[in-house]
Amino acid sequence: MNKSISLSQIAKELNIDFNGDDTFISGINTLKDASSSQISFCDNPKYLNDLKTTKAKAVLLKEELVENLPKDCIALVSNQPYLLLAYATKLFAPNVLEEYGKEPVIGENCNIMPNVSIGKNTIIGNNCIFMSGVFIGDNVSIGDSTIIYPNVTIYRNCKIGSNCILHANTVIGSDGFGFAHTKDGQHIKIYQNGNVEIGNDVEIGSNCSVDRAVFGTTKILDGVKMDNLIQIGHNCEIGEYTIITSQVGVAGSSKLGRNTVMGAQSGVAGHLEIAPYTTIAARGGVTKSIKEGGKIWAGFPLSEHKTWLKLQAKISNLLK
Amino acid sequence: MNKSISLSQIAKELNIDFNGDDTFISGINTLKDASSSQISFCDNPKYLNDLKTTKAKAVLLKEELVENLPKDCIALVSNQPYLLLAYATKLFAPNVLEEYGKEPVIGENCNIMPNVSIGKNTIIGNNCIFMSGVFIGDNVSIGDSTIIYPNVTIYRNCKIGSNCILHANTVIGSDGFGFAHTKDGQHIKIYQNGNVEIGNDVEIGSNCSVDRAVFGTTKILDGVKMDNLIQIGHNCEIGEYTIITSQVGVAGSSKLGRNTVMGAQSGVAGHLEIAPYTTIAARGGVTKSIKEGGKIWAGFPLSEHKTWLKLQAKISNLLK
Amino acid sequence: MNKSISLSQIAKELNIDFNGDDTFISGINTLKDASSSQISFCDNPKYLNDLKTTKAKAVLLKEELVENLPKDCIALVSNQPYLLLAYATKLFAPNVLEEYGKEPVIGENCNIMPNVSIGKNTIIGNNCIFMSGVFIGDNVSIGDSTIIYPNVTIYRNCKIGSNCILHANTVIGSDGFGFAHTKDGQHIKIYQNGNVEIGNDVEIGSNCSVDRAVFGTTKILDGVKMDNLIQIGHNCEIGEYTIITSQVGVAGSSKLGRNTVMGAQSGVAGHLEIAPYTTIAARGGVTKSIKEGGKIWAGFPLSEHKTWLKLQAKISNLLK
Repeated sequence: MNKSISLSQIAKELNIDFNGDDTFISGINTLKDASSSQISFCDNPKYLNDLKTTKAKAVLLKEELVENLPKDCIALVSNQPYLLLAYATKLFAPNVLEEYGKEPVIGENCNIMPNVSIGKNTIIGNNCIFMSGVFIGDNVSIGDSTIIYPNVTIYRNCKIGSNCILHANTVIGSDGFGFAHTKDGQHIKIYQNGNVEIGNDVEIGSNCSVDRAVFGTTKILDGVKMDNLIQIGHNCEIGEYTIITSQVGVAGSSKLGRNTVMGAQSGVAGHLEIAPYTTIAARGGVTKSIKEGGKIWAGFPLSEHKTWLKLQAKISNLLK
Repeated sequence: MNKSISLSQIAKELNIDFNGDDTFISGINTLKDASSSQISFCDNPKYLNDLKTTKAKAVLLKEELVENLPKDCIALVSNQPYLLLAYATKLFAPNVLEEYGKEPVIGENCNIMPNVSIGKNTIIGNNCIFMSGVFIGDNVSIGDSTIIYPNVTIYRNCKIGSNCILHANTVIGSDGFGFAHTKDGQHIKIYQNGNVEIGNDVEIGSNCSVDRAVFGTTKILDGVKMDNLIQIGHNCEIGEYTIITSQVGVAGSSKLGRNTVMGAQSGVAGHLEIAPYTTIAARGGVTKSIKEGGKIWAGFPLSEHKTWLKLQAKISNLLK
Repeated sequence: MNKSISLSQIAKELNIDFNGDDTFISGINTLKDASSSQISFCDNPKYLNDLKTTKAKAVLLKEELVENLPKDCIALVSNQPYLLLAYATKLFAPNVLEEYGKEPVIGENCNIMPNVSIGKNTIIGNNCIFMSGVFIGDNVSIGDSTIIYPNVTIYRNCKIGSNCILHANTVIGSDGFGFAHTKDGQHIKIYQNGNVEIGNDVEIGSNCSVDRAVFGTTKILDGVKMDNLIQIGHNCEIGEYTIITSQVGVAGSSKLGRNTVMGAQSGVAGHLEIAPYTTIAARGGVTKSIKEGGKIWAGFPLSEHKTWLKLQAKISNLLK
């Protein structure tokens, strides 16, 4: 199911000069995570250190950054590397549905109701219950004793652990929200070729959306409990035993440490880290990483909960 | 599928005096948009100019506004014109499901999975993929190469363009939220007889709700990209290439100009206009129209983003 | 479908000492609502009055609270009564799907589309329309003339009245969010063995989640109108003719009086009461009970709307 494309063909599709030794490329990844069979991209000088140490076979980047490439790494030079990245992700996107593949393997003692759709190459453990209207895509794996309520959708390539409960109409693995922008204001889709992995003993409420990663994996670790109508963006990592109450949103690439508690209608901006045992009160909005664990935070802008209470008292004093 | 009802019968059903020349009425619309075969209503003096220039055949209104009617327009006098409007919308509501009608027409090279329901008179373009659990109502049209993920529901009479992606469990065309209220506090449904039209190259995330118009059309224009768990109210117009991130709500009848950007968990109140190229930061709440485009706004109440930052600094100084 | 377990067996499963007269227990409930065939729990001294007057046959509680038990009530002593409650709820949880039971009874003149799943012992009234992908669990009852749009999920044991409209992809009766916590930070599910009851003439928009009660019933009373993407927590009671607009969240056990109006994106914390005819403006966050009805409130922290407007003026003056 993974595609392999020659570097010369990628360059041709992207309309880039390329004269080096040709080789097959298996995918795209960040500078940090790319293997020597993958390509990467650099559109922001703040990733210069990652650029200097990347193991990627080739990197999409601007002319002025070429001098920072590791010795064996091939430059794919463009004025718009992020836009070309978007076009490149399309080259590596799998078919929406597998054309070929094995029939799914279902474990023992499962109760699969009528009108459940299970994709090719998918493997289901023992003692699972899947109710009507559940859709499970291609190349999915699900552990033992997991209960999936009606009309849940699980996209291709995702993994779900054992003893999980997924409530009705929740979606696991829909595309992360990623686009490059043209000069005239159009948006070019960055294909979300990663997946979602959910650990064991996870419960997710109804009408939640957990987006698949652009590269790599969106992770919900063991023992996480989520309420209803929650958004988890692409490439997030939700730490063990974290509690997320209703209508919370966590934007892309943020990492919540273990036993984080997110109050109702709170939110986390993208690319942040929250230290373990942090509590965010209802409606709190996190826009900076929280480095010291075990504290309670509130408000938007966020402050420590006790500070927020004092501040609200001061604010209400304005009326006196 | 459109109903045609004589004016005398409408008057009888609504228990209104009517003695003029009878004629057939094809539907209901606002004062501004009503044609000469439609009826309209006026429950608020702020629409007096629309009343004076309406092309409607007849108007539900209070006695004291009758003198403002155009010469050929028939008065349907009531003390509770909005309540009677609600009853009138029921008269024009189509059947929930078409009893008669043609089998749907499906284009070439489509992949329609099992357990997809497609309504009467519906027309599907070429190269579409519809996954299991997708419901497409009666009288819908969908363009070419559109991908619809599992358990998406598209209500009757809606139009979807080409090259669109609708992610799992999203709903297009559910009823807008409109009720008239009786004196004893009950709510009478205003039937939402309009539809939703979505342009080309639109992507909508999972678990979104886009409501159908009460009259006319809720519009999502070309190239719009929407994330997950988003609410679009009835009769909104979302301008070309607008970006709406997760958990945003846009209330009824608001218009977003092209290339608007709505940050996560932001909101727009009803009946507003936002100028093109406006950015609303995460959590921003828009309660007045934004007339000058190209600016960044934040907060609730909303202010320019740079002003909001200064204000937050001043507020946090209250603790010193 | 209700389980009956002997007190000695419950004690054994929970690893608690028990030497009294044995008897059969039919379920678990709060101190206030428990009948003489149920057990209850007390983990918080603020419920001391309820403890002193409970009719429960036996109560899980700490040693130091035993002296407050009514004379005939049996003590089930533990250092972690709330954790043992969680384990006890599992003992009383019904099977996820009924193994035995009667075929559903469907009234006259209903339009049940293909791919609708209706559970055992379920009773449907006359003139209902259920569209494709609707799932109705075991032991459900639904009144006359109710319309259920595609991909709605109704869990077991719930009741829906007559003349209701449930829009697409809404979920009624998913598990409330309740967990007890172990000393090492794991979360033990409190099985949600209650249900949801929805009155007559209720309309609920698309993609809403209404959670089932932990014990007893989550109630949506007659004539309530709800927009899209709304969260109603377990054990809430939404009073007659209440209006809830889009993206509102009401946390567990809160009671909204009749004709409450909740503006868009507003929220109510758990265990509160809101007096009848209260209006909460958009984005308002209710964290204390509202005892006097008929007023308009706004902001977070909440204040009367007119006060909130004055306060915002004062705040914006900080920049002068």
